[in-house]
Amino acid sequence: MADSNGARKRTESDSMGTIDVPADHYWGAQTERSLHNFDIGRPTFVWGRPMIKALGTLKKAAAQANGQLGELPEDIAGLIVKAADEVIKGKLDDEFPLVVFQTGSGTQSNMNSNEVIANRAIELAGGTIGSKTPVHPNDHVNRGQSSNDTFPTAMHVAVVCELAEMYPRVERLRNTLDAKATQYNDVIMPGRTHLQDATPIRLGQVISGWVAQIDFALDAIRHADSQARELAIGGTAVGTGLNAHPDFGPLTAQKISEQTGIEFTQAKNLFAALSAHDALVLVSGSLRVLADALMKIANDVRWYASGPRDGLGELLIPENEPGSSIMPGKVNPTQCEAMTMVATKVFGNDATVGFAGSQGNFQLNVFKPVMAWCVLESIKLLGDTCESFDKHCAYGIEPNREKIDHDLSINLMQVTALNRHIGYDKASKIAKNAHHKGLSLRQSALELGFVSAEQFDAWVVPADMTHPSAAKD
Amino acid sequence: MADSNGARKRTESDSMGTIDVPADHYWGAQTERSLHNFDIGRPTFVWGRPMIKALGTLKKAAAQANGQLGELPEDIAGLIVKAADEVIKGKLDDEFPLVVFQTGSGTQSNMNSNEVIANRAIELAGGTIGSKTPVHPNDHVNRGQSSNDTFPTAMHVAVVCELAEMYPRVERLRNTLDAKATQYNDVIMPGRTHLQDATPIRLGQVISGWVAQIDFALDAIRHADSQARELAIGGTAVGTGLNAHPDFGPLTAQKISEQTGIEFTQAKNLFAALSAHDALVLVSGSLRVLADALMKIANDVRWYASGPRDGLGELLIPENEPGSSIMPGKVNPTQCEAMTMVATKVFGNDATVGFAGSQGNFQLNVFKPVMAWCVLESIKLLGDTCESFDKHCAYGIEPNREKIDHDLSINLMQVTALNRHIGYDKASKIAKNAHHKGLSLRQSALELGFVSAEQFDAWVVPADMTHPSAAKD
Amino acid sequence: MADSNGARKRTESDSMGTIDVPADHYWGAQTERSLHNFDIGRPTFVWGRPMIKALGTLKKAAAQANGQLGELPEDIAGLIVKAADEVIKGKLDDEFPLVVFQTGSGTQSNMNSNEVIANRAIELAGGTIGSKTPVHPNDHVNRGQSSNDTFPTAMHVAVVCELAEMYPRVERLRNTLDAKATQYNDVIMPGRTHLQDATPIRLGQVISGWVAQIDFALDAIRHADSQARELAIGGTAVGTGLNAHPDFGPLTAQKISEQTGIEFTQAKNLFAALSAHDALVLVSGSLRVLADALMKIANDVRWYASGPRDGLGELLIPENEPGSSIMPGKVNPTQCEAMTMVATKVFGNDATVGFAGSQGNFQLNVFKPVMAWCVLESIKLLGDTCESFDKHCAYGIEPNREKIDHDLSINLMQVTALNRHIGYDKASKIAKNAHHKGLSLRQSALELGFVSAEQFDAWVVPADMTHPSAAKD
Amino acid sequence: MADSNGARKRTESDSMGTIDVPADHYWGAQTERSLHNFDIGRPTFVWGRPMIKALGTLKKAAAQANGQLGELPEDIAGLIVKAADEVIKGKLDDEFPLVVFQTGSGTQSNMNSNEVIANRAIELAGGTIGSKTPVHPNDHVNRGQSSNDTFPTAMHVAVVCELAEMYPRVERLRNTLDAKATQYNDVIMPGRTHLQDATPIRLGQVISGWVAQIDFALDAIRHADSQARELAIGGTAVGTGLNAHPDFGPLTAQKISEQTGIEFTQAKNLFAALSAHDALVLVSGSLRVLADALMKIANDVRWYASGPRDGLGELLIPENEPGSSIMPGKVNPTQCEAMTMVATKVFGNDATVGFAGSQGNFQLNVFKPVMAWCVLESIKLLGDTCESFDKHCAYGIEPNREKIDHDLSINLMQVTALNRHIGYDKASKIAKNAHHKGLSLRQSALELGFVSAEQFDAWVVPADMTHPSAAKD
Repeated sequence: MADSNGARKRTESDSMGTIDVPADHYWGAQTERSLHNFDIGRPTFVWGRPMIKALGTLKKAAAQANGQLGELPEDIAGLIVKAADEVIKGKLDDEFPLVVFQTGSGTQSNMNSNEVIANRAIELAGGTIGSKTPVHPNDHVNRGQSSNDTFPTAMHVAVVCELAEMYPRVERLRNTLDAKATQYNDVIMPGRTHLQDATPIRLGQVISGWVAQIDFALDAIRHADSQARELAIGGTAVGTGLNAHPDFGPLTAQKISEQTGIEFTQAKNLFAALSAHDALVLVSGSLRVLADALMKIANDVRWYASGPRDGLGELLIPENEPGSSIMPGKVNPTQCEAMTMVATKVFGNDATVGFAGSQGNFQLNVFKPVMAWCVLESIKLLGDTCESFDKHCAYGIEPNREKIDHDLSINLMQVTALNRHIGYDKASKIAKNAHHKGLSLRQSALELGFVSAEQFDAWVVPADMTHPSAAKD
Repeated sequence: MADSNGARKRTESDSMGTIDVPADHYWGAQTERSLHNFDIGRPTFVWGRPMIKALGTLKKAAAQANGQLGELPEDIAGLIVKAADEVIKGKLDDEFPLVVFQTGSGTQSNMNSNEVIANRAIELAGGTIGSKTPVHPNDHVNRGQSSNDTFPTAMHVAVVCELAEMYPRVERLRNTLDAKATQYNDVIMPGRTHLQDATPIRLGQVISGWVAQIDFALDAIRHADSQARELAIGGTAVGTGLNAHPDFGPLTAQKISEQTGIEFTQAKNLFAALSAHDALVLVSGSLRVLADALMKIANDVRWYASGPRDGLGELLIPENEPGSSIMPGKVNPTQCEAMTMVATKVFGNDATVGFAGSQGNFQLNVFKPVMAWCVLESIKLLGDTCESFDKHCAYGIEPNREKIDHDLSINLMQVTALNRHIGYDKASKIAKNAHHKGLSLRQSALELGFVSAEQFDAWVVPADMTHPSAAKD
Repeated sequence: MADSNGARKRTESDSMGTIDVPADHYWGAQTERSLHNFDIGRPTFVWGRPMIKALGTLKKAAAQANGQLGELPEDIAGLIVKAADEVIKGKLDDEFPLVVFQTGSGTQSNMNSNEVIANRAIELAGGTIGSKTPVHPNDHVNRGQSSNDTFPTAMHVAVVCELAEMYPRVERLRNTLDAKATQYNDVIMPGRTHLQDATPIRLGQVISGWVAQIDFALDAIRHADSQARELAIGGTAVGTGLNAHPDFGPLTAQKISEQTGIEFTQAKNLFAALSAHDALVLVSGSLRVLADALMKIANDVRWYASGPRDGLGELLIPENEPGSSIMPGKVNPTQCEAMTMVATKVFGNDATVGFAGSQGNFQLNVFKPVMAWCVLESIKLLGDTCESFDKHCAYGIEPNREKIDHDLSINLMQVTALNRHIGYDKASKIAKNAHHKGLSLRQSALELGFVSAEQFDAWVVPADMTHPSAAKD
Repeated sequence: MADSNGARKRTESDSMGTIDVPADHYWGAQTERSLHNFDIGRPTFVWGRPMIKALGTLKKAAAQANGQLGELPEDIAGLIVKAADEVIKGKLDDEFPLVVFQTGSGTQSNMNSNEVIANRAIELAGGTIGSKTPVHPNDHVNRGQSSNDTFPTAMHVAVVCELAEMYPRVERLRNTLDAKATQYNDVIMPGRTHLQDATPIRLGQVISGWVAQIDFALDAIRHADSQARELAIGGTAVGTGLNAHPDFGPLTAQKISEQTGIEFTQAKNLFAALSAHDALVLVSGSLRVLADALMKIANDVRWYASGPRDGLGELLIPENEPGSSIMPGKVNPTQCEAMTMVATKVFGNDATVGFAGSQGNFQLNVFKPVMAWCVLESIKLLGDTCESFDKHCAYGIEPNREKIDHDLSINLMQVTALNRHIGYDKASKIAKNAHHKGLSLRQSALELGFVSAEQFDAWVVPADMTHPSAAKD
């Protein structure tokens, strides 16, 4: 059979009746219906590897569990496992043509995986594709499952696995910065608060603050990650587990753990696991902490590197590309810009996730696909931008010692060191006098007669101002 | 020349030096550098048709303007126009491989278009690709321009043109609903406020409220659209117009208007046009109003259609696909779900746009690409979901007259019609008595003796309750 | 009668029964119940002047309209008008003790106004407070009304009136800046894009960009404001107008217009007016545009004023207070900081409004109070911060001409002026050579031999770079 | 001395010079300047108890630490402790008149506390208020401190202490619901997914899902809380600890722990502690999880309680107040509405916090006050609404058993139990046949002949459908 364009077709059926599908694809009736009914956001929002792989992982694990529990014949289970393995390995990615904006439970993507795995399994068994024999998409591949528990399970598996990919990428940036903090701990530069000159600080200390922010964010993400390892599987339609073997959920979680090397468990409360996705809201919120940190870091880097002559110019960063189509010789902090744009995107994704996460009703939240998409996108973007920033910017950050020394030499806030000796009020007069007359701090201090030259030189020492000390020291 | 994989290469150069690029592509050195430096968000965030077309449109218009003003030789201008036409028509989409997360001014995408057009123009002229002769990407294609004015110009052109595509799609849904409002104006059903039973309303009135919301949102979007038709072109690097002919900006805007059939003008203040994108923030905010409206409408539809037996069940909607992988025979309001998910995505995009829009510094906002992407995505998703909802759901909305009549018959809030006759306090007693004893309103009213049967029947008439009336009526 | 604390009480009643209320207050049973039931967010979220005044305005207008239409006896209407006048003038503010977080239709605040006006009117008539004679809170004060139409009417009236208060405060800042733009148009300073040095710009041009942003935002707000002047009044319970005279809505709107001097009309679609508040979402979105603009402006001011010695230091701003509790003599851009904090607060309020605005169901949106609160708060904060910034910062902004001249003299991006004469590629070499060798642009240009000294001096003139020009000029 | 209004004044001074302050207040020059300079958001945004108490707690602890370390004379330290104790106890709340929208480091509120404590301590010592003798606001009260470390310390102390107040309020609601879950575990009702009828579920299970959501959110908040117990104290101006004794930070944290009974420590990285407030972003994000949960719960409750006759009507909730000013006898789910409004407010606050948290520069984030305000407000609102919902709604939730039984009896999705026996496809036919012909499931099943009456009765048992089971069972 061929359609009007000559493309070969075969007939598939579901509870709605029959429908023609492309003969060269494994998907079945429900996937085809979804293709017709949901032409929203193509091609951007077609599911990618993380969700496809997670669905494959889940279906394999479920077949293993059902086989072991006697809920599926061993041979059927074996066929499903084989087909699911191909899904996992990416051999069947073209068989997953559906988009995010479909039914809010992800039913159609769950059925897409059921149909593709069933038909591929049928093919492996030498059967007729579309015949549902010997492998039925619902009765076998979806055995003991509902989209309402499989899709959120796959969401969690995808998110947790993608986080595992993200961590080392963020950590490489973190480690690059940490090494810089050590390397440049000797560089003393003006501190800046309110964008105004402040007391001295070491470049190593500045960078250590960035590292601490990344560490804090990673800790937060890891904590949220640990909360997302509870899976909805075994809840089936409404969380009661109807039609699933009592051990199916826990055992499937265990099989997923074995496949991924990450410990998953069945959720303690399956009703919440279907009707809310608070763990994803938490993950998203923790990713926002990382976005916040990266925004701060990228902003600091580009401000310190501003110039080359009319800016702060205290840091030098790699020159990667011409900066302007009109201004010759211009070099811009482009990695910082990409990173801060990612931060705003992660904020937007987080707004979507938080909103969508609040909209569950009764036994189901039907914003699952958009929540999964946004969280996965944020993870990917954060990993990408950290790797890019590390490779193309952070590695090459260097102090501009000449500019730093100059800036430090004219800095007035070193007067703060005098507080303990002459009090805040007199110290204030020295600073103001220097500022208004254009004097150095030392000149001003001596002019006002509040300290002797010897005292000034003993008390106002930038290096001594980069750590606490007892008053009597 | 070929690289280690055997792919043929040619050498291109920019102010940074030389670099190998694929021989079978038109792009040049800066595009290639960007490919190396920004591997962030692939493949999702590669620019699509709207921005590519807008860049082509702009480059064509600029060449026309420069030619007319004597800033470019006629033959060079002509070559650029020819090559730009191919960009506009989509023949060179594969030559635009860059992603959103690049430099925040879009410089690399501007240069991508300069390089591709220059090389294609060189080819058309029989020259050597990469030689910059006779057409130079900066000196000719980018003549009188800077990324800082071209990219925001292209953003606005893309957004305004995509809005023009969106309107009819939203309006078709609006018109479908409007026709339903007329068709079902005779259907009187229980009103609901606070989710609680309220006084009667006509289905036509209910739907007219949805239509009014869409109309309001479209008006808001059209107003914002009108504000986005001011273009940054002519501002060049910092808004001063350095290196551009004084008439270049206005004339280019005019040429763009001629190409697109939409009236664009040069922005009145070019400094704001480069350093802020408040018009896009406004567009995004107006799209959020549409998202708000669609959220309300889709929620109403699915709640009215809830059931089939344990819900409100007052509306019937088309059955498009099996609703559940485990519950046989289930049909779900899937178009509503896709639409509400789109709404949450538009909210997230809007959060990104609002945040990014606040982050300009001095003469430039470097969040341009992410702002353009998010606004364009929201426009596309809203258009897609309206079309999908219209075709697969709205067309088939029907009242379930039997259920509606039943619900109306037991509704207690019709007691409100008695307020004017017996006062709120007595009317309240009737309602409460009916509620607690399980009586009909009429039974309760008569039992309490506040009205006669004749009075009740004359005063409590659902149809009369769907419009205002004078007390003496 | 007195309670256990000895406070005197009187008994009031509603359809729930009787309840004791403080004898020295005018409010009745429903206000008292709300006090007991909603102890949320005190004291922050108790309604303030704008909503109380708007409720008074509405109740007065409604009484006038009902009187004129024969729906209320003239004497009753007159009593209500007198009592409402006291509400409008602020004499009874202590009688409005309820908070935002009550019922989502604002029913209790509507009843609060009904009860207070009824009891005060009774008192004026010499009656017994609490007796509902001769003025009944529901049957008379609330005549032809429902909370569902009065509360959103009051919301709109409050918002529109508060906007009218806000405009001149924002405009004063706008005008101060506009005068600065004129005053300092002769000051030529380095442009900055990507935080990097760019081609010259006039300070007047920089500030004109800020003014243009404010103008754009005010236009956007005024447009949204115009959309918010449609009132829900006349819709009563569900939008049908049940129990209201057909002319009541339009006439009440007219009376409100007369009172406020601002033209209000009845909403064209009353179903949307009760079940959605898209006009407030639009207003909030437009306020966000102003917040965006203020964020940009305040950031620019504080960056330009950074230093005094280790920052850009090109602008001077007033010193208003000691900047640090530890660093003597420090002065900070505190007005900028307050303004940017306000911007983030307006963003948050906008997020609430957008979210809440999407959550209507059927004939009612029950997020009215929180939407009104957030929009009113944003308006107030924006007006306050503009006035504060104007009076304590903008008035005193001055260029630091010495620093500006220095920065301009070392700026390399003036090389851009050579593009048209020698091409982008050679110009680029001059800039890079200067940068790497620490030369002036002129030195570098001559060293490379691309231009003569005479050409350089003729072509590279900062003032000429602050406007467009034909290539042949 | 008295001003033109006759109010008595005294003269105070700071590094800017002298200024008159009200003679009947303890505050000094900087507080007075802030009052003049920041008239933004009054009266709403004046600091309340939590921040005042936290500042008092900190100042007391700092004085104790400085005294113990020999950085302050014992008598001075003792005077400060006494005055700070009055701040802690709330005796001096009227002395804290400043608003949130001030300098972004909170310097003026820090100085407010320094000035008030110094002057009160001077008074206690019999000195002259305003003389700075024997207790100086900077040199003694602020000893070893900077606003940059004290204000974020106070923010954290306030947030952590307020969370401690919030937990039991949320937990009481949680426990009320948990008891309901147990009490009503016997009630079997229709499940609902996609708002459509689904397989049976126990009311106890439904409520257990709500409890699980609250538990999850509380866990998330407690984790974030634990991260917020690191204090910036000891960092002084830029994080280096200049002018503080090396043991001052840790010892002050210990003293705060002793005062509050909550274990605080000095932050591991003080540079991050001043320039970022990621712990507050994390707390805010975790509060959003609770808001998400409450939104879901409140929505479920009001939907289940919708009616009384035209809604789902499966739950009964307490009637607290008349629901309508026009519809007599109406009762609304007002506590649900207040709760969902709170949820949207918490979302907005969270948007502010996330945005503000990203905006640090160099050694300081100057959005501290607005971040503190928003987080504290969210904590308060969540605690308030949980307590209110618990006392006025949750306690009285009851099943409407008659309605539930009816709804369950007509539910078609019980057909799902047949999947395992006759397969999904046949089960689907039974459901569709029943739906289209208006039959009961049993009637339809028998009509189609897929099962016998005995089989149907054995296999389709609602109670059996509320838990998993092996296929062979």
